[in-house]
Amino acid sequence: MTFFEDVRAGDKYALGRHTFTAAEIKGFAVRFDPQPFHVDEAAAERSHFGALCASGWHTAAVWMRLMVAYRRTLREAALARGERVGTVGPALGFRDLKWLKPVYVGDAIDYASEVLETRVSASRPGLGLLSSRATGANQNGDMVISFISTAFIERRAAS
Amino acid sequence: MTFFEDVRAGDKYALGRHTFTAAEIKGFAVRFDPQPFHVDEAAAERSHFGALCASGWHTAAVWMRLMVAYRRTLREAALARGERVGTVGPALGFRDLKWLKPVYVGDAIDYASEVLETRVSASRPGLGLLSSRATGANQNGDMVISFISTAFIERRAAS
Repeated sequence: MTFFEDVRAGDKYALGRHTFTAAEIKGFAVRFDPQPFHVDEAAAERSHFGALCASGWHTAAVWMRLMVAYRRTLREAALARGERVGTVGPALGFRDLKWLKPVYVGDAIDYASEVLETRVSASRPGLGLLSSRATGANQNGDMVISFISTAFIERRAAS
Repeated sequence: MTFFEDVRAGDKYALGRHTFTAAEIKGFAVRFDPQPFHVDEAAAERSHFGALCASGWHTAAVWMRLMVAYRRTLREAALARGERVGTVGPALGFRDLKWLKPVYVGDAIDYASEVLETRVSASRPGLGLLSSRATGANQNGDMVISFISTAFIERRAAS
């Protein structure tokens, strides 16, 4: 994922694992999603979830953090080799975000990204477009989140 | 939006306005989206955005907070009348999220939700399903975020 030309449909990236703590789940939810099952253990036990679980927006935001860290690692490794990596543009949005299972306290989520499609941008020929499926799976192998993102990536030819 | 039966396609809800501050934009981005144009004014000025702007996940999370507050207000008003409101289930996911314009420091975003479709759940006949378009527009009337959510809502008949 250094330049458009280096990316192929089917490429998979393991972005890392994140374990959700109660403090972190409540800290996010108090700010952005203060539903009882995200902020209070006792209320969560009485809810259909049965226990405290993370806001879906929180599980998505952790994917973003790991993706940014992954790109940074790639960039630093390239710089160490005296190379540079293409700029990955801001995401334009995403499609088909699904929260498939709750993320409970202590769940360890493995985040990954798989390239679905690559194409040159018609409107901006110096750039390519990557469509990728982002996923998170828990320690039992159950998918908890899935969505498809599309973002610009610099073409080597243009650099 | 108290029970399924009270909701009609075309209903619109104004969820409130949120003004994004630099401290808040950076606070979210440091945790979840530490790209230069979200965490550092000088780097943002050199980027294609031209100035510090909010993570798209941040603008989405603020929608969630306002929606939760809106539902809470409805619930409290109903309780004050001696009534109750139907439970709105957790969202199952989102479709077609688009970040249409950057959200800069000081931008005041008006969030809203419009019901697109209502139907009884085939698998859970005590529940209805609401599809809604969530939007955020800035002080110039430009749409900055749009997505479609689907969530369960309790039927009055079942209560």
